[in-house]
Amino acid sequence: MDTKARASRGGRQDSAAACRIRAAATAAFAENGYGGTSTRDITRRLGLSAAAMYPHYESKQALLFAISLEGHEEALHALRRADDPNSPPTERLRAVVAAFAAWQARQSELARVVQYEIRALAPDQHKKILAVRRKTSAVIARIIEAGVGAGEFATDDPDGVLLAILSLCVDVCRWFPSRTHSDADRVAALYADLAVRMLA
Amino acid sequence: MDTKARASRGGRQDSAAACRIRAAATAAFAENGYGGTSTRDITRRLGLSAAAMYPHYESKQALLFAISLEGHEEALHALRRADDPNSPPTERLRAVVAAFAAWQARQSELARVVQYEIRALAPDQHKKILAVRRKTSAVIARIIEAGVGAGEFATDDPDGVLLAILSLCVDVCRWFPSRTHSDADRVAALYADLAVRMLA
Repeated sequence: MDTKARASRGGRQDSAAACRIRAAATAAFAENGYGGTSTRDITRRLGLSAAAMYPHYESKQALLFAISLEGHEEALHALRRADDPNSPPTERLRAVVAAFAAWQARQSELARVVQYEIRALAPDQHKKILAVRRKTSAVIARIIEAGVGAGEFATDDPDGVLLAILSLCVDVCRWFPSRTHSDADRVAALYADLAVRMLA
Repeated sequence: MDTKARASRGGRQDSAAACRIRAAATAAFAENGYGGTSTRDITRRLGLSAAAMYPHYESKQALLFAISLEGHEEALHALRRADDPNSPPTERLRAVVAAFAAWQARQSELARVVQYEIRALAPDQHKKILAVRRKTSAVIARIIEAGVGAGEFATDDPDGVLLAILSLCVDVCRWFPSRTHSDADRVAALYADLAVRMLA
């Protein structure tokens, strides 16, 4: 999603300056961690004073929350766009797992911040992020349920397989690109195949 | 592994004080990140002055390296202990994946530090850690190779499946325990089953 699409999505008013601050913060958090990054470190990347952040984000934590919400919502939208409820469950699972793995690969820096700094959020912020995560899980859970119902999938532990598929995809952001795997589409196709095998 | 076993393993002379400093640092890094933790933050947890660290570790980075090396070596030893080369490949894979997943669950705090702060290491430290990781991968790679050779496993992409199995297990440290999965042995059994399915 480009800067303009990010800025206008969901009808939220979002200035280009706020976008640039989020991008600078994501890079800083990915490099030095949330705890290792000051507001000054973020604004310095943009050639601004530390005070320049406050009209857009009242604190470093508010900025992390905005980044986390945006990242989680983007991943959810990528999954939903990939899902065609009229297709057979096996094809739906392939499409959705491929989209999720590819998102984690292509947005690996953002995804790492979003995943690894979640503990730094305030309780009410954390709750809002978990609500988006539940929607993301539900997309795949419904496909597994449909596949078991249609006799395409076999599993004694649908919740366990759901957890494993999500976990497998999320971890892509930790290692991508690696020495042997640097093509997001190839990783997506591999993971789609492995998810189907988990339920064969 | 308890503190005493950690202290004596590999014939390295290692004082109880150094062990306590590593434990305090692991907790601090897990809580606030490497970048968000000062030497003083670590020693304060032990009721010591910041200078108390230097006889044991010359820098915060040297301490992170010691923790990373210990964590990676422990995981490698857990895998090797679980592997019986005289068993059929399917049983070997089950045992080794279960051991790796269980280690990530039981040592989730240490594992998160070891995995997520690897970018903070110096190049020569990073190289030493990668050497241990390669040994860990090799344990599972050899089992996959033996299983394909024996006709127990079927895959067009053994390197891809190896990557996915390692990644699936490593990500346990990110989410364990979850609301639905808080029993390390149950996660280990589930993941052992899913790894076999990836190669069925």
